Formats: sequence, C-alpha cells, structure tokens
Amino acid sequence: MKAYQLASRRAGSDSTVVAVSLPGKTVHIGPGTCTIIAGPCSVESRDNYLEIALLLKEIGIDMLRGGAFKPRTSPYSFAGLGEEGLDILAEARAVTGLPVVTEVVDPRDMERVCDCVDVIQIGSRNMQNFALLKEAGRSPLPVLLKRGLAATIEEWLLAAEYILEAGNPQVILCERGIRTFEEMTRNTLDIAAVALVKELSHLPVIVDPSHATGRRSLVAPAARAAIAAGADGLMIEVHQNPDQALSDGIQSLTPLMFAALQRDIRNLAGLAGGISTEGEELRRER
Amino acid sequence: MKAYQLASRRAGSDSTVVAVSLPGKTVHIGPGTCTIIAGPCSVESRDNYLEIALLLKEIGIDMLRGGAFKPRTSPYSFAGLGEEGLDILAEARAVTGLPVVTEVVDPRDMERVCDCVDVIQIGSRNMQNFALLKEAGRSPLPVLLKRGLAATIEEWLLAAEYILEAGNPQVILCERGIRTFEEMTRNTLDIAAVALVKELSHLPVIVDPSHATGRRSLVAPAARAAIAAGADGLMIEVHQNPDQALSDGIQSLTPLMFAALQRDIRNLAGLAGGISTEGEELRRER
Amino acid sequence: MKAYQLASRRAGSDSTVVAVSLPGKTVHIGPGTCTIIAGPCSVESRDNYLEIALLLKEIGIDMLRGGAFKPRTSPYSFAGLGEEGLDILAEARAVTGLPVVTEVVDPRDMERVCDCVDVIQIGSRNMQNFALLKEAGRSPLPVLLKRGLAATIEEWLLAAEYILEAGNPQVILCERGIRTFEEMTRNTLDIAAVALVKELSHLPVIVDPSHATGRRSLVAPAARAAIAAGADGLMIEVHQNPDQALSDGIQSLTPLMFAALQRDIRNLAGLAGGISTEGEELRRER
Amino acid sequence: MKAYQLASRRAGSDSTVVAVSLPGKTVHIGPGTCTIIAGPCSVESRDNYLEIALLLKEIGIDMLRGGAFKPRTSPYSFAGLGEEGLDILAEARAVTGLPVVTEVVDPRDMERVCDCVDVIQIGSRNMQNFALLKEAGRSPLPVLLKRGLAATIEEWLLAAEYILEAGNPQVILCERGIRTFEEMTRNTLDIAAVALVKELSHLPVIVDPSHATGRRSLVAPAARAAIAAGADGLMIEVHQNPDQALSDGIQSLTPLMFAALQRDIRNLAGLAGGISTEGEELRRER
Repeated sequence: MKAYQLASRRAGSDSTVVAVSLPGKTVHIGPGTCTIIAGPCSVESRDNYLEIALLLKEIGIDMLRGGAFKPRTSPYSFAGLGEEGLDILAEARAVTGLPVVTEVVDPRDMERVCDCVDVIQIGSRNMQNFALLKEAGRSPLPVLLKRGLAATIEEWLLAAEYILEAGNPQVILCERGIRTFEEMTRNTLDIAAVALVKELSHLPVIVDPSHATGRRSLVAPAARAAIAAGADGLMIEVHQNPDQALSDGIQSLTPLMFAALQRDIRNLAGLAGGISTEGEELRRER
Repeated sequence: MKAYQLASRRAGSDSTVVAVSLPGKTVHIGPGTCTIIAGPCSVESRDNYLEIALLLKEIGIDMLRGGAFKPRTSPYSFAGLGEEGLDILAEARAVTGLPVVTEVVDPRDMERVCDCVDVIQIGSRNMQNFALLKEAGRSPLPVLLKRGLAATIEEWLLAAEYILEAGNPQVILCERGIRTFEEMTRNTLDIAAVALVKELSHLPVIVDPSHATGRRSLVAPAARAAIAAGADGLMIEVHQNPDQALSDGIQSLTPLMFAALQRDIRNLAGLAGGISTEGEELRRER
Repeated sequence: MKAYQLASRRAGSDSTVVAVSLPGKTVHIGPGTCTIIAGPCSVESRDNYLEIALLLKEIGIDMLRGGAFKPRTSPYSFAGLGEEGLDILAEARAVTGLPVVTEVVDPRDMERVCDCVDVIQIGSRNMQNFALLKEAGRSPLPVLLKRGLAATIEEWLLAAEYILEAGNPQVILCERGIRTFEEMTRNTLDIAAVALVKELSHLPVIVDPSHATGRRSLVAPAARAAIAAGADGLMIEVHQNPDQALSDGIQSLTPLMFAALQRDIRNLAGLAGGISTEGEELRRER
Repeated sequence: MKAYQLASRRAGSDSTVVAVSLPGKTVHIGPGTCTIIAGPCSVESRDNYLEIALLLKEIGIDMLRGGAFKPRTSPYSFAGLGEEGLDILAEARAVTGLPVVTEVVDPRDMERVCDCVDVIQIGSRNMQNFALLKEAGRSPLPVLLKRGLAATIEEWLLAAEYILEAGNPQVILCERGIRTFEEMTRNTLDIAAVALVKELSHLPVIVDPSHATGRRSLVAPAARAAIAAGADGLMIEVHQNPDQALSDGIQSLTPLMFAALQRDIRNLAGLAGGISTEGEELRRER
C-alpha cells in the first residue's frame, strides 16, 4: 500500500477528470483537455479586473485566475483587496460566464471564498498548512494544489492525500517550479515531475510557467514544454500593463503575447494528444 | 531602510533578550544566556510526558517542549493529542515550574494554546503561513519562529517582521536545518546563518540540532557547533525510549545522553561567552 | 561588456550553427536543425557497439554517442574500454558514415581522441576542469559542453568562454539536469535554462533527457519538452538490452522505444520551427 | 562491504593520523591535533607571500597555504602565477620551516608540484576529476581533498577511495561548504557532515570556513563551530590587505583578526578534546 493510497494510480483504473460546473457550462481538467487558466496575479481594482477578464474571455481561455488574498514575503507589500476582491471575482464570473479560481490562505475564509469562486487554490507556501488542507478537503469545490517551493513529489502527493482523505475527490495538481541554487530564474520548473506525477497518480496536473520562471520571455517556452511533457493545462499570469502591476509584473504577459502563446499551445496540444497515447503504451510496456 | 525594519539590528542599539515569565520565575533568551529547551517531539500520554518532564527538570533544563498539534507529512501519521495534549502540557508546567513551548498550526487554536503554555512555536512548514504569523503577532506570548525548510535568511527575517509588525516584540528565531541535495542527514544545519542573523538582527537565535540532523549521533556535535557559533540556546528532542517514540525517535536522545550533552554545552557556553565578546569587537572593526 | 563576451549573444548577430564534417557529409547543430544523437552510455564491446550503431543509423539518427573513458563515482565501477573503445568508435564511424561524439576526461588523451571521433564531449563533472577546457579549446573538433551538476547558467557560459577564448569557436551546450533536493529523479531537467541560454548566447543548445531524468519512462516526455522549449537537438541513451547495460541501463531506451520517440520529435520539431520564429519576435519585442 | 571500503571506518581500528614530514619537523593531522593551515588565497608576488608567511609563522600556525594554479570561474580572472608561484612557495617553506599545501589542477603538473610543496590539494571543482585523483593517488605526498560544491558525502568518500585505491593512504578531507539556495553566504557550511564523516571514515577531516561562508565576519564563528563539531583542523585565508587581494579578499582575515581567532580556537580545542572522547563513547553506545 502506497503512502498516498487515494492519490496513487491504481492498476486498470482511469485518470481523474476534474469537472468545474457553472450554470450552463462545465470545464474539465484532465487527460485530453488542455485547460487554460489566465488572469492577473492579484485583483487590483474592479475596472481593471473586469477589463482583463473580458479580454481573456475574448481570447478564448477556459478559466479566470485572480488573487484576493495574496501571501507576500514582506508584511509591507500589497496583500490583495481581501473581501472586496472576492466580490470583484464573483462579478467577473457573472459577466464572463467563466469559472474563477482564487487562493485561500486562512481556513476561516474558506466558506466565504467558496461562495464567490469555482475552484479553490492552495498556494505553494501553504502546501503543508494542514489545517487549510483539511478545510479544503471539506469544501464543495475542486482544489488546485500548488507544489511547495521545496516539496518533494512524495510530499506533494501526500498533501493531496489530506484533501482526498477529508472527502474531496476533486484535486488538481499544479507544478510551479522548485527552489534550487540557480538565480537567473525565479524557480526551476521541474518538467519531469509533470510526467512522473501522471505516472504515479490519477490526478490531473497543470503547470504555472509564470511563477516557475519569473521572466516574461521564458513563459512561452516553459508553457510549450509543459504541454509537450503531458500537462493537462496551464495557469498563466496576464496583465494589461505588466510594468504597472502591483505584484509579479515582471513575469506577466500582455494580452497580445498571451493570445499568440495560446494559439501555439492549442496546436501543440492537438499534436501532443496523439503523442500522449503513445506515451501510455510505452508506459504499459515497461 | 531595510525590508525588515523592525527585525533588523540598528546601530548602537542592544540585542533583544526575550523574557518568559512564570509565577516566581523568569527565563531569558538572548546574548549571554544559553537557554536549553528539551522534551519529546510529541506529547504521547500524560504519564509519559510528566515522567520525562520531571527527569528533564532534574537534569537542569530551562524550558520544556512538547507537541500537542503535530504537522505531519502524511494524513495517516500520529498528529498529536490535540486539546488533551495542551492539558498535559499545562499540568507539566504546574508540576515542574518550568515554562513550556508548543507549536500552534491553526490560527483558530491560538487563544486556547496561549492559555496553556508560555511560548508559542511557529513550525518550519508554517513559516510563511501569514494568517498564523499575524495571529501570533497579536498574542500575549513570546513566539519561537522556526526557519522554513527552504527559506532564505531574508524571508525568515521578514516572517519575524510579520509578528513584530502586528505588535508582538518577543520573537525568538530558531535555525533547524535547510533542505539540500544531501541525503544522509535529514536537513543541513546552516550554522553560518546563526552568526549572520545575529549580525543582521537584534533578535535572539537558537538552534534545533535534532531536526537539523535527524540522526541521534549528530545531535551532540551539532549542538556544540551551534553554541560555538554564537547561538543563544538550543532546543533538543529527548525521549525516555526513543525507539518507541510515536514521532522522530531516530533523532531523539535518551535522558542519559542528553545529560552528558548538557554538561558539555554549559562548559562551552562559559568559554563562548568570552569568545563572543571578542566576536562583537571584530564585528565593529569591519 | 558581459563576463562571457565571446559566448554572449550580440545585438544583430546570428546564432551559431556548429558544423560537424565528415567525408561527403556535414551535420549541423543550431537553430532549425533538430539534431539527434543516440547510442549506449558506454562502448561495451565491438560487436555490441557496431550492432546498435547500425540499428540507430537505420532509425535515422544524426550522430552516434558512446563512452570510451567513463567518469564513474566509484573506482570499482566499469570505467570504459579506454583506447580500445576509441578504436571501436572509429570503426563504427567508418561503417555507418555517422559522426561520433565521445567524452574526454584527461587532457593527455585529447590528441588521441580527436583522431578517432568528430565531436569531443566535456562531461558534467569536468565542466570546471579548466585544464581540460583549455585543451579542448585548442583542439580542431567541435566541443559538446555539458552543464555541471550544480553549475549556474553563468558558470556554464563562462566554461564555454574558456573554450572559445582558447580559439575554438565550435561549442555546443548540453543541458543534462541539475542537482536538487528531489530524489525521485536522478537530476532535475532545467527546461527554462534551454530557452534562457538561447536568449543569452548565440551557441546551440541540446538536451540530454536520459541523464536529466534517470528514468526510462521519463525520457520521452522530457525529450518532447526540450524540443518544445527550443532545444536544437537531443542526446539520448539507447541500448539493445538496457537491463544488461554496464552503466546507466535504468535510463536507456530500447531501439523500439527510441524509434517511436524519434518520430514524435521530428513531428514536434516541424511544429516548433514555426513556433520558435514567433518566439524570436516576442523576444525582440521585450 | 561498503562502496568505499578503504575509506570507511572499520570496527576496532584506529583513526588515521596523516603525517606531513619536513626535515626536523613532522606535522600531524588527525584526532587530537588541531592543525591550523593559513595563508592567502593565491600567491600574488614573492615579497607579499614571504611577508605573510613569516607573519603567520610568528602567529603560530602549523602549515602554509597559497595557490599557484587557481581554478577561476572566468577565463579573464587572475589564475595564479603558475610555476613562478611554486618557486615562491618552495622559498617560503625554506624560510619559515613550515610545510606548504597548494592546489594542483592538471595531472601534468603533479610531479613538478610535488617537488615544491608538502601536501597536494584537490579543489572542489576537481573532486570528480578522476584523472587527477588517480595521479594524486600515485604521488608521494599527502592529499587534501576538498568536498565538491554539490557532492554528497558518499561521493566525497568515493573520491577519497580513488586516491587510496591508487596507493596513497594519506588523505585529509576538507569540508568547505556546499551549494544551496541561500544567497547571503557564498556556500552553506555542512557542519554535521564533519561529525558524520568522522563516524563513517577513519580519515581526518578539516574545515575551510573562508570558502564555506565567503564573508569575513562569519569566518570566526564558522571556525569555532567546526572545532566544536569535531574537526581535526582548519584552513583559513589570511591576507595582509584583504581589500587589495587578487582573489577572495572579501572572505580573508587580516593577520590581527586571525591571531585572535587562533587563540580562541586553541582554547576551544583544549575543551573539545575532553568532549570528543565523550562523543566517542556516545557513538559506541548507539
């Protein structure tokens, strides 16, 4: 018996496809989908957020992202609009018809957050915040679980196990880079982990190339690499005016850059679809 | 202005000595003290805990440790006795007259924990759990803040800044090893960080050689190294019967081993007292 | 002026395409090529090597690899056939008409090795063996320079600078994974480094997914990711019977697996060709 | 049988004490000694080197260090005086009567270097330069083997095994910090490795606090920690005028700082002598 018995891939069983349901629409995340989540790092103002949300809907994304509660290294940095941010996210959802994912950092906020969005995010710094994981495990929404900054693959799957064990079967894993000695990139995207986790677990895996690289020019190649390696989707930071973003501007794409990248990704995903089947065969062969 | 303006050492100002007050007794942590905190990883039962607490009082420690809420990588591992553990800690305090430190993992438990112990611990996995840090910053007790598994020194000081900024000036920093590629030890004790943090900050710094090494035979040399490098104290895991401990037995000392180590440490601290003054001079000279 | 003035990309100048010349044939490595180098980790015997070399020629690779001098962690491991291995490599080259790359570990072997093969490899452990780098810089052959186990991108480019400065302009960089805390893979493939180095330098970059992952099942996804991220080629370990390989069997593909992967890669490279142009534009836009 | 059978500690056998012999003098390195090696990073000129050598002799060190062949990350940095540097080292030895250690970076220089100095150093970047290790194994002098930048303890002991297996039983291990994510220090001194290697191997272990920390103010606390953890000696960079050093000035001590540190160290070593015996007993108890 594996240490992460609920998260682990069982012989003969299918991969999990997480379903995010809205009135009149369901977004799937799992094998064969190439779910694209985009938006600014944080919700900075109502007008700004609604504008980018509508632009991204136009470009054809599958889900919106946006932070209301931002974990920040310094207590003096902008930490999000909080409750007001949640209201803006709910409005963006209503206006665009797109599902929304946002991070929750305090177990006491869980209920309120669940009322406003469609997917709950547990961030890297909280991957082993077990109180928060258990609360997410009791929530009715799918949970996007980011890998911790220095979490091993096993620890990441065990964090997922906390959510599954508490009763929530809808977990999406998100690789976002790990901390290494290399200083030219914000983190080191562990691209092989994407394929390895899909081997070890039935859960869907997406990649966040924005945090993984921390450099605008590397987001596109990292995103393409993620899809080529078998990721089920991407989460990408996009901002109307990255140089004026209140957080993470240096790694945010403009809508124009993002639109070009999304075209590439859709093409690649079509090709990768054929490839990944073959991958499955190779896997069985081993 | 430094990013961690409250935590940083200001020219001409003194180091902070944290005072832990009990009826009829005050334990200090800071320059010139060599505060020794000891106890088992987790409170396993009332009888067990009271027995080891009395033994450790006999050996002459300054503060008791013991986990009631244990963050565990796997949801299937023993996670502490919870509230019952807090009651046992309170009883041990009453029986021994020693102050007690315990970890809090959920901001909703803060008030209850503060009623039972004398120092609150924020563990490595929660070093960037900002909701918890802010709650600790509003608590009346000193806070022992462990360095995160992969936290830079700057991030660690900024985490302390969260607590200070929320109004609690009593923060004790605890170096407990960082995650590296080396697999023969549980973590890598960053011994130079002890001296560097004392240069950068006025806060006291202690070392946890048990978690830093994860191997019983390395606890003593690591503890001695910590004091020689200028640490203000130590936190060490001791268990009556390490091989039967419910957590961390492999790195726990027996009371006998611990008593021998404490003698060494007291001798070394006497010597290091003279040395550290000289260190201060060297520092000024730079 | 950059620290690596010869290796760095200069405004307005083209990327370098390394040319490996044989009688009647030239193999190019650089933008637009997708050069595939394959072969066993080490040359184990004449018959074995000639057999796999012919198989790989059939499959359509561009260059053969094979180790005659193998740097091994333990002095008791198989360290290659040495001079005899060089003769076998020369014969394989004659028989297949394919160019051959092999590692050199001792500056005193440089001349002899240059007589037998077409590209010299400097391995990870020797990336900062400056005596060897300088000798390679004086050799007439192109040099494939692997990134060190824990080398930063800047150190890697400065190692290339040693070769360039000594007079050899033909350097191929090879990303092969870096050492991190993750233990489930042999190394962590730094996929973003591929794109970043192509931004910083005019030199071609290839990827070795075999050493980067150390697990057979991960070689294919890592190889696809490399091409999608903009790598100019791949170096892959292939063995007739991986389970009986004298070194690195666990990460070697069978010829059948490799043939399937090569088909995928050629398709992807076609698509990525279009993509990478767009990437260039994005880059210019920054 | 251990992978490093010659380097490993055998039950019941003694620790190795390396003897460095000069006419009329023998310097020992091993348990109970506290051998202090000091000198500038590189030999910069005859006058400079002789001056510091005489100063250090006066202060009472046991061995001189100084680089004639310096491995430098950039091909444009000062790389030592080469052969001329060797002559200066030989002169310093004659003038002071102290043994001298210097690094060799090219197997072709081994013989010449052995004629001029008393201990050969293999640097971090060459820890897995197996051609060099084997050459050192055939040399008549003791070898000081630095741990690689990202070498595991096991790899380090296996590198020692190469030297031992080639016939040279006189190996001194030197911990000099490993590469981690922390950026405020040049490297991370792995202090627990000192104690662990002494458990695993019979070879003497010394520490280089200068490279381990890369900051002048941290050299003294790191040196004290090393001795407290059981190191058999220290290698420390000292320069008359650190701010004008051609390499590593930022981590070099002035002679005055060094003299104060040496006093501390001798005191501590006296105390640690008593302690380490007790350590042995604890070890046996396990």
